[in-house]
Amino acid sequence: MRPGPASRPGRAPAPTPVERDSIVTAIDFAAFVNDLADLSARTIAPFFRSAMTMENKAGHGAFDPVTEADRAAEAAMRARIRQTFPAHGVEGEEYGDERASSEYVWVLDPIDGTAAFISGLPLWGTLIGLKRNGAPVYGMMCQPFIGEKFYGDCGQSRYQRGAETRVIRTRRCASLAEATLSSTSPHLFSEAEAGAFDRVRRAARLTRYGADCYAYCLLAAGHIDLVIEAGLKPCDIAPLVPIIQGAGGVVTTWDGQPATHGGRIIAAGDPTLHAAAMRLLAGAA
Amino acid sequence: MRPGPASRPGRAPAPTPVERDSIVTAIDFAAFVNDLADLSARTIAPFFRSAMTMENKAGHGAFDPVTEADRAAEAAMRARIRQTFPAHGVEGEEYGDERASSEYVWVLDPIDGTAAFISGLPLWGTLIGLKRNGAPVYGMMCQPFIGEKFYGDCGQSRYQRGAETRVIRTRRCASLAEATLSSTSPHLFSEAEAGAFDRVRRAARLTRYGADCYAYCLLAAGHIDLVIEAGLKPCDIAPLVPIIQGAGGVVTTWDGQPATHGGRIIAAGDPTLHAAAMRLLAGAA
Repeated sequence: MRPGPASRPGRAPAPTPVERDSIVTAIDFAAFVNDLADLSARTIAPFFRSAMTMENKAGHGAFDPVTEADRAAEAAMRARIRQTFPAHGVEGEEYGDERASSEYVWVLDPIDGTAAFISGLPLWGTLIGLKRNGAPVYGMMCQPFIGEKFYGDCGQSRYQRGAETRVIRTRRCASLAEATLSSTSPHLFSEAEAGAFDRVRRAARLTRYGADCYAYCLLAAGHIDLVIEAGLKPCDIAPLVPIIQGAGGVVTTWDGQPATHGGRIIAAGDPTLHAAAMRLLAGAA
Repeated sequence: MRPGPASRPGRAPAPTPVERDSIVTAIDFAAFVNDLADLSARTIAPFFRSAMTMENKAGHGAFDPVTEADRAAEAAMRARIRQTFPAHGVEGEEYGDERASSEYVWVLDPIDGTAAFISGLPLWGTLIGLKRNGAPVYGMMCQPFIGEKFYGDCGQSRYQRGAETRVIRTRRCASLAEATLSSTSPHLFSEAEAGAFDRVRRAARLTRYGADCYAYCLLAAGHIDLVIEAGLKPCDIAPLVPIIQGAGGVVTTWDGQPATHGGRIIAAGDPTLHAAAMRLLAGAA
């Protein structure tokens, strides 16, 4: 995690030595991450909105197309990483941890948003993150059906679609009464969590559900102000941290700890809004 | 409305005279509807994910970019209709009804899903419907950011993206326990409606929120089994009726009346599932 907003007056402070280090890392790995995302996209494409997906029903045999797509894409990315950076570690949902104590560790989630995927909704994404000495330094979210990539290195974030590439920034929104809030589903919270979330929802201007990783990227791009979720795995959030932070946002757990390990997560485009929402979340058992 | 599923044994019955009439109507108007959708898309494009949208905040002046985009697109489509079919009527959200007693009446909703639109989520859609003597005979949903069109004439429905055009069908799913359910938001229901919806949700396999008109089209394409909503305006649903019915689905109000006039709406890909969900919805005050 970078230092909190209090230590970053203004929007373009001179990078600290640690930050310069992160930026160099990002330049080194950006093209490789882009290739990994394209490899994952090619692997997953035949499974999205396919006849296989449509025929999949609970109890009708062991074949689960979204798991098959997830596994195939993770295996392909792992092989590419092993070939290119044999000393690097990998953490992924389907095949566990390899060399997790390496200086560089990749965090992979080929299909974040499996429920969206099996419903034909194009708001799932391929998440690829890179940690150095345990801290996220680079991340990408790729939505291959729409053809979008959001990526960042904690210092700057970008959006790419076709020939268009542009820097993205979170928008200023200091007040909950003006904020657009997003969460994947109101039914993923425990009772105490649901009560806390509801306090924020009632204070917010607008609430949208159903966007998984896509919501954090729209926050980074200045369209959504707040994302609040619970029960996230490390691979669901670690790749998004450099995108959110690089765009000027703040992402932590509900009790203000680094988001890297997952759990209850709150992301805000504006640090003042993050603090306001944290006060309403406080006390969830 | 077409006759219910009881009068349609099998999947490809011979068309009745009324159905043949609808198909002829569809062939006449399909190219025109396609042009209308493209005109609407060009009008709306500058407003989606624009700086204007991002700066829009409640109370900061009267400029509302989604309303501006909605108005501009509806005005452009109305002008094109008036020019091409001066005797036809038009119903639209922004400019009211014109010649509503005509044999042919167009139903326009340039941005269905305004909350998605202002949140940068690409699940809003342009809805264009055509009614003949009060009955929907043709409809299109266009999502221009992704570049998708779903359209139907009550007899057949199609999906088009780029060079790909294909016939779509709902999927068989007779059991709630295997069904994927979608609704725009759990917070749009009255208390009685929320209780009824929750009975269906608890019986369903999976529930997704946030998709507006897009959900009905994924139902037509066989990815979602059930959509349940309340408080819909006629222009939110009338253009979708020919797409859902043309793909083999059923769409009615919660008490089994024609969906054309909006209100509480239930759409199902499988007629048996429609009946099962209707039983759980029964009794909502």
